[in-house]
Amino acid sequence: VQVGLFVKKYEVIKTIFQNDALPMMPKHKEAEGFAPTNIALCKYWGKRDRDINLPVTSSLSVTLPNKGSTTRLSMAEDGMDHIVLNGEKILDDSQFYLRTVDYLNLFRPRSNWHLNIDITMNIPVAAGLASSACGFASLLFALKNLFQWKLNKRELSILARLGSGSACRSIWNGFVEWHAGIRADGMDSFGEPLYYEWPGLVLGILTVNANIKPISSREAMQRTVDSSVLYTAWPKKVAQDLSIIKQSLRVRSFSLLCGTAESNALAMHATMLSSWPTICYYLPETIALMHQIWDLRRHGLQIFFTQDAGPNLKIFFLEKDEKFVRAHFPTIEVIPLFVK
Amino acid sequence: VQVGLFVKKYEVIKTIFQNDALPMMPKHKEAEGFAPTNIALCKYWGKRDRDINLPVTSSLSVTLPNKGSTTRLSMAEDGMDHIVLNGEKILDDSQFYLRTVDYLNLFRPRSNWHLNIDITMNIPVAAGLASSACGFASLLFALKNLFQWKLNKRELSILARLGSGSACRSIWNGFVEWHAGIRADGMDSFGEPLYYEWPGLVLGILTVNANIKPISSREAMQRTVDSSVLYTAWPKKVAQDLSIIKQSLRVRSFSLLCGTAESNALAMHATMLSSWPTICYYLPETIALMHQIWDLRRHGLQIFFTQDAGPNLKIFFLEKDEKFVRAHFPTIEVIPLFVK
Repeated sequence: VQVGLFVKKYEVIKTIFQNDALPMMPKHKEAEGFAPTNIALCKYWGKRDRDINLPVTSSLSVTLPNKGSTTRLSMAEDGMDHIVLNGEKILDDSQFYLRTVDYLNLFRPRSNWHLNIDITMNIPVAAGLASSACGFASLLFALKNLFQWKLNKRELSILARLGSGSACRSIWNGFVEWHAGIRADGMDSFGEPLYYEWPGLVLGILTVNANIKPISSREAMQRTVDSSVLYTAWPKKVAQDLSIIKQSLRVRSFSLLCGTAESNALAMHATMLSSWPTICYYLPETIALMHQIWDLRRHGLQIFFTQDAGPNLKIFFLEKDEKFVRAHFPTIEVIPLFVK
Repeated sequence: VQVGLFVKKYEVIKTIFQNDALPMMPKHKEAEGFAPTNIALCKYWGKRDRDINLPVTSSLSVTLPNKGSTTRLSMAEDGMDHIVLNGEKILDDSQFYLRTVDYLNLFRPRSNWHLNIDITMNIPVAAGLASSACGFASLLFALKNLFQWKLNKRELSILARLGSGSACRSIWNGFVEWHAGIRADGMDSFGEPLYYEWPGLVLGILTVNANIKPISSREAMQRTVDSSVLYTAWPKKVAQDLSIIKQSLRVRSFSLLCGTAESNALAMHATMLSSWPTICYYLPETIALMHQIWDLRRHGLQIFFTQDAGPNLKIFFLEKDEKFVRAHFPTIEVIPLFVK
């Protein structure tokens, strides 16, 4: 399986590097890369190809400027890769280590370099902030700098996708659409920026007292696709939501944009609830927050939430309401989405 | 609208009473009827005809023996109907009163009798135990006795459906399937008993500290049909679940029966979560109970839940486990489903 998976991913590498053969050895001894994380307004949920992370539907995100992952690379001389995440050594039998090394292997099929990989994330840990998205994108940017690859951002987006699907959106700032594409080789499945600026749009993170996730988003996605009958209607839901979200960006309607994002997130969790065994990321505190948000909205405060594969909520609101929002959610972490 | 609705319902009355014209006046001065309530294992969710309560899909329930509604009727001499529910007078501008009188009007298009209607329910009030199902069915049984209608149970089921959809299942004990039917006049849409006995099958009611429902099940159903994209997959889900539930009755598999019921209820609530505005009957306490149930199940206790349009859960378990269940849920109300 591992070999077959490698071959399929490696086909993509060969396509991308065809005119500019994959450099055998790094150009530099050290390099660094930063990639911001992103939050989907229209979720990526379900793969049409599990090997090269091709999604069933398109999706649309907004990038968190300056919040993400920095990867520093240097050559390792002991014939092994070493990974440090936020100052802590990652064990070489962990999923994190194996996934990262599998990814590096794509770029050294006939060469024998190894790396010290030092990853630092300035996002709240375990808040469900797509750490694998910015992690793989920052690793890719660092590799690009190390090898001085001559690749454009679309090509980088496709390469990032091979590490983690949503990483293909972390290549840009602002609103980004990931086109699902229809090709089997995935060469038409990449992120693309939508050039709308929205100063005053703010994200807030409401962290619920959470233990470890009961199930990874990767597994949850797969179980949903395999067992949820309601998932068969998900592509229709996404088509509708994507069209409304893009329309709301054009007409600059905050409530249409974020109301649709909220509905999309609820529908994603709905597809999980009807999986078997059921996947339920809701904790009692999540539901309490949801009711509180609906209640505040009924009383005129324009806030909307989204939720990824975890119990925390992220809320969207406008800068002018920050004071009220902070009053209602004292522990909120506030992140402006468009830095002036 | 009210007149059009009356006409459509009255067409059904005319069809049912065709050979035995609707008696003008009651045969007796007083009469009484009892109907048990029922809990759906495969839910009725969505109407293909709102006027005469024709469902989008078939559904399947189990009746709570001896738990339900008793309706006592006597002639009212002041030209008005009077309703008392559990000893309390129902105001004549309430929804409850108007819906009941609308129903009575179907049976007196050219006559002028009025009734004192005394309804007593021995089910926990506001626990989401389908009080309108047993309420309308018991009123119908009482009317049948009052007028001495010569109708069979299938005809009574169709008449009960005109009052409240799920009332058509409260005509029988045990497992009952409500056939959706395909006819526009609904003459093929009625409940039918499935003759499986299951001594030892027990229902437990876990009542969450609930305020008034945010939205009636009638409205919730309609909004779901109108606005939930995921609802388009609901008929497929029901077809699958109904087939599994009937198979599990044949092979007497408790976990297959009740696991499917749980999944069906989750999927029904999933269709609501993706409605807009969102319908969420979950309270924090509901989610806490759900996680507790999943946790106990992981530890080997065979309990499953179902949930209707309210925050409470009903759980299914086997008599042999009653001691353990009571230990974990001290406030549970236990109702054996098959009385020996």
